Amino acid sequence: MGIIVQKFGGSSVADAAGVKRVAQRIVNTKKQGHNVVVVVSAMGDTTDELIDLANEVSPLPPARELDMLLTAGERISMAVLSMAINDLGHDARSFTGSQAGVITDAEHGRAKIIDVSPGRIEAAISEGAIAIVAGFQGVSQTTKDITTLGRGGSDTTAVALAVALKADVCEIYSDVDGIFTADPRIEPRARKIPRISYEETLEMAAQGAKILHLRCVEYARRYNMPIHVRSSFSEKEGTWVVNAEDVAQESTDKENTVEEAIITGVAHDRSQAKITVVGVPDKVGEAAAIFRALADAAINLDMIVQNVSAATTGLTDISFTLPRTQGQVAMGALAKLQGEVGYDKVLYDDGVGKVSIVGAGMSSAPGISARFFESLSAAGVNIEMISTSEIRVSVVVAEPQVEAAVNAAHAAFGLGSDEVEAVVYGGTGR
Amino acid sequence: MGIIVQKFGGSSVADAAGVKRVAQRIVNTKKQGHNVVVVVSAMGDTTDELIDLANEVSPLPPARELDMLLTAGERISMAVLSMAINDLGHDARSFTGSQAGVITDAEHGRAKIIDVSPGRIEAAISEGAIAIVAGFQGVSQTTKDITTLGRGGSDTTAVALAVALKADVCEIYSDVDGIFTADPRIEPRARKIPRISYEETLEMAAQGAKILHLRCVEYARRYNMPIHVRSSFSEKEGTWVVNAEDVAQESTDKENTVEEAIITGVAHDRSQAKITVVGVPDKVGEAAAIFRALADAAINLDMIVQNVSAATTGLTDISFTLPRTQGQVAMGALAKLQGEVGYDKVLYDDGVGKVSIVGAGMSSAPGISARFFESLSAAGVNIEMISTSEIRVSVVVAEPQVEAAVNAAHAAFGLGSDEVEAVVYGGTGR
Repeated sequence: MGIIVQKFGGSSVADAAGVKRVAQRIVNTKKQGHNVVVVVSAMGDTTDELIDLANEVSPLPPARELDMLLTAGERISMAVLSMAINDLGHDARSFTGSQAGVITDAEHGRAKIIDVSPGRIEAAISEGAIAIVAGFQGVSQTTKDITTLGRGGSDTTAVALAVALKADVCEIYSDVDGIFTADPRIEPRARKIPRISYEETLEMAAQGAKILHLRCVEYARRYNMPIHVRSSFSEKEGTWVVNAEDVAQESTDKENTVEEAIITGVAHDRSQAKITVVGVPDKVGEAAAIFRALADAAINLDMIVQNVSAATTGLTDISFTLPRTQGQVAMGALAKLQGEVGYDKVLYDDGVGKVSIVGAGMSSAPGISARFFESLSAAGVNIEMISTSEIRVSVVVAEPQVEAAVNAAHAAFGLGSDEVEAVVYGGTGR
Repeated sequence: MGIIVQKFGGSSVADAAGVKRVAQRIVNTKKQGHNVVVVVSAMGDTTDELIDLANEVSPLPPARELDMLLTAGERISMAVLSMAINDLGHDARSFTGSQAGVITDAEHGRAKIIDVSPGRIEAAISEGAIAIVAGFQGVSQTTKDITTLGRGGSDTTAVALAVALKADVCEIYSDVDGIFTADPRIEPRARKIPRISYEETLEMAAQGAKILHLRCVEYARRYNMPIHVRSSFSEKEGTWVVNAEDVAQESTDKENTVEEAIITGVAHDRSQAKITVVGVPDKVGEAAAIFRALADAAINLDMIVQNVSAATTGLTDISFTLPRTQGQVAMGALAKLQGEVGYDKVLYDDGVGKVSIVGAGMSSAPGISARFFESLSAAGVNIEMISTSEIRVSVVVAEPQVEAAVNAAHAAFGLGSDEVEAVVYGGTGR
């Protein structure tokens, strides 16, 4: 009998009604003849409420104690979910991350899983029980202290457990039906993607699509664990995240056109800002000094563009994007540098957005960038910056033009369905 | 350097302000040169709220899962308290019952402590840290599942840890100043008792004085661990619960009068009901059948009185008291028995109260019962039932007369202070 790992997020178990609905869903899977292991996040806003409580007593709580506090959230949700399943007449047992054998390093707040020893989970399912495991948490191998994996860590818990248990699939439930060719809120013709590769999912996630967390997809890719992204509010098939060969096989099976395979989706991101350092002397070490200063300030840079220096002045401009939340810190770090580097000025712009096309077929298909840029041009969208990877082309545009850019790219690569897809959203408004 | 174990109840840490106040108090003790180990209950009404949540998803949640759920309460309070202490510049580390080495049997919801192996606590305090331990919880020796000790279990956790750590004292903090000669809410002249024996404390608690939980006092008595009952809202000395020899020594030191030593306090209890089975045939086995039926229904009987049978009828009446909450169940069990035993009728009365005088010196002092009953008579209080132990005399009276009975007994044995004691209560209104 195969094992299915199912992960339910906080919005799916936000209240007693949600817990009961999820419990019924889990029982249905069990009745279909599967061994079921469930990973659950804290109910609704519990984690935020616990953080608020911590801040009431201490402006900077110790990370060890914050982890101890936050793990109370999953302890509540897993016990309540287990009760609801038992109430439906099925044996269910809840386990903390530590009890489930989720062994991590000692980095509180962002611990990495270094081993999973799910002996108690295997024992529970071999006795016919449904195992409910707390997401997001583990226990340090060295200190034996309770750790958390950071936000989104429950997805990673689910994949790691699925790998350790040799599960058939890891199902990640949320309040949307799967991964779409674009955000359905701004692209009404967005289609649900039936299959997508790990690599494309990583690029989509990194470029702003709020689907799966990077770490969880990386973990699944490393161990080739299929992820099925689906909604806890419907029984529909969602999106399968699998390795590239399986996606290609599927496309051949369905005799999809080549064009459909080239671009998988359009992602956008409104969380970034752009900084331009104007008039940097084009000498060895100047750019290095700038990026060293930003690295020392722990700034997460995304796109970086350096123009060719003007022959007459020997000066160049360096632009980069970064999370808006880090804008102040970055500007401060650069200001301290003006004497050393001797640039003219620094420009800060948080009225930008990034739009990316992602597709595994892109690298072998010529003219993709051209078609993308032409579609933007036809829609009157001005490109401010460009960057590319093997399977992605990203542009920075003015924020008010993000929607037009997504629509244009979506249409240019034939991603839209003929009819507007009825997207089922849950009640949380997210 | 000696070890002090301090236990703070839920009302002391009901909110962030309470947590900070308690943190300061703990730090003060640490600064006085003690190693400090703290046991904490769940904040305020957390436990009740978690029980409500459980009942929302399941009318009868499995005990294992309920324990998992409820232990989230102390996890929150201990982490937050630890943060507050760290915020005051002192190293504090929180530990679950399991981490603190509280090993129990597998009786979920009412587990018994069978061993305490506080290796991690000893390591923490040897490094100069303050250890914060979750009360009320442990881990089963056999199943490795999380257990709870039942309501009031945090007191027992504190005493058990104090014993295992060979602490100098176990301080139990609440919102009252200590143990009083009577409930100050109905006896304005009640005095705080400076020292009281384990045995007297057990009798006071069993007879309705809401001070310490029986199990915790029994544990302390077995291992001769002094308990200091005091208020978290004041720095005053509270009540020391110690062995009888130490109480006697203290009395001799202070040259107290003999009379003061005879009766320690007056307890009262309004939670009981009285059932009278009228017209029971006075034959071998009739009473046994009644009490077997009640035992099978898990009724906790307290006082039992059987009158001499009337010579003319050969019938007798049997009365007993029991918790009001069990009244319906007991009446149902007795109704089923009428055919077998053949009694006349059963009377149920929940308008009763119990008043008890407790004192270790009682057994060697004649006339105590007489003085007690005379005082009640003089106050116009009618006695419905009487029972006695080595160090206690209890009477059942009509509930509206409980207060008058307490006042009369308190005065008759000279327990009152000359002035009305200024009792300091906390803000919780308990």
